[in-house]
Amino acid sequence: MKLLSENKAFGGTHLRYSHTSTTTNCEMTFAIFLPPFASKEKPVPVLYWLSGLTCNDQNFMQKAGAMKLASELGMAIVAPDTSPRGEGVPDDAEGAYDFGLGAGFYVDAIQAPWDEHYNMYSYITEELPPLIEGEFPVTKEKAISGHSMGGHGALIIGMRNPNKYVSVSAFSPIANPSDCPWGEKALGNYLGSDKASWKDYDASELMASQTHYIPMLVEQGTKDEFLQEQLKPQSLVHAAQRSETQLTLNMHEGYDHSYFFIASFIEEHLEFHAGHMGLI
Amino acid sequence: MKLLSENKAFGGTHLRYSHTSTTTNCEMTFAIFLPPFASKEKPVPVLYWLSGLTCNDQNFMQKAGAMKLASELGMAIVAPDTSPRGEGVPDDAEGAYDFGLGAGFYVDAIQAPWDEHYNMYSYITEELPPLIEGEFPVTKEKAISGHSMGGHGALIIGMRNPNKYVSVSAFSPIANPSDCPWGEKALGNYLGSDKASWKDYDASELMASQTHYIPMLVEQGTKDEFLQEQLKPQSLVHAAQRSETQLTLNMHEGYDHSYFFIASFIEEHLEFHAGHMGLI
Repeated sequence: MKLLSENKAFGGTHLRYSHTSTTTNCEMTFAIFLPPFASKEKPVPVLYWLSGLTCNDQNFMQKAGAMKLASELGMAIVAPDTSPRGEGVPDDAEGAYDFGLGAGFYVDAIQAPWDEHYNMYSYITEELPPLIEGEFPVTKEKAISGHSMGGHGALIIGMRNPNKYVSVSAFSPIANPSDCPWGEKALGNYLGSDKASWKDYDASELMASQTHYIPMLVEQGTKDEFLQEQLKPQSLVHAAQRSETQLTLNMHEGYDHSYFFIASFIEEHLEFHAGHMGLI
Repeated sequence: MKLLSENKAFGGTHLRYSHTSTTTNCEMTFAIFLPPFASKEKPVPVLYWLSGLTCNDQNFMQKAGAMKLASELGMAIVAPDTSPRGEGVPDDAEGAYDFGLGAGFYVDAIQAPWDEHYNMYSYITEELPPLIEGEFPVTKEKAISGHSMGGHGALIIGMRNPNKYVSVSAFSPIANPSDCPWGEKALGNYLGSDKASWKDYDASELMASQTHYIPMLVEQGTKDEFLQEQLKPQSLVHAAQRSETQLTLNMHEGYDHSYFFIASFIEEHLEFHAGHMGLI
């Protein structure tokens, strides 16, 4: 691991690292916030935050305003990048923002040329946690959250791994990617045209057949410019009704898709996860 | 005024506007945060925030984490841009970050070609407040704060106008611009080589001859990469001792020049200003 930068913040430390990933076959960057007093003797649980389209490891750390409460709660936060990057990593043919670089969609690609590097699902669930747990004063206890594409990632990762994460939450998630333009483009390219292979990466599909309950909290703004066409939280609600799964979806009048929305409610999510981590 | 964007945040509203400035002779952009329930019947006081080199109206609004407490206190925040911009506005000959665009230094330039547009002192003190007070539900009560170049701006504006602002604060200010590379370059170009004309724009010079006390709070990180060469808070302290002026300078072990430092202590500054505004 290579340390890229270090900032003291709220008594804790914000660190950025790069490392060679054997899952994505390229150099990956992540950020971690360690609260004050985290030590090998007193390790802390970790919230993983998955960011949305066009983002990298920095958007959440700089804009969400999460560090103050994380510092008080004694919770680490890890923010991975949103895709593989670097020389040799293929991108959207036209450089579009919604596919390729910055748009890994948290899947393991099975179609060439994407399958060599675009394995973000395994990177987030299999490679990154042991690395974090080996290098930093954290426990194995973890929760996962994210925004938009990252909200989709958090929901599918949480539902598919209910024994690995204590709780899952999302802001403005792409809740039914099999049935929206962003999702159809990404899943079609990464996974191919057989929609059967998409189901494991669709929160509404997973929710409909949910058997292991994981505590789940979702926030959505009513003025979100992507609400109707791309996000479709109602699909998730209907699926939860079919599988009789408990889901808390909070609709917020007047809020949009921006980090101003995330910042406005991030503390409720930290408290939700902290409760399931036993911190409060 | 032209509305550029609008986001709901913490129950209040974050707005960006552009307008034609008669002081800087160009189109200027600013952001304003209005807390919930601000109305013509219940107008709120305003904190002006002046940003540092390379910044615009957005850095503070996105990264400082100030909106939550401002919302609770009932305080508006106005973040102007850091220089004139647009076609015909001259820039540093080599496009350096520390002079010209994004680096107005909150002075009224008296040297050609800078004097046509680079009149940020008058823009902040004379043009912007009446505009804000005419268009938004705010009172005439105001405080001023800023970071780095903007900390310099806040200090000189506060000390030169103790009857217009109830309090002044700064993070990592350029405290003695007559005696540091950033300040010498900017003041030399905007004001010319006669250093007598620089005194009105140098916080340490103004502090040394301070007669009207204005409540003042300054934060500084000890690991700030610009501390020794550019910022020189000790000059401000020595000047305060000479003029027997009260100055609170908090040195913070391990903090750097970034917004992570500002975010860590911004709430103390909001509370400081709120106290002088009579909000708490």
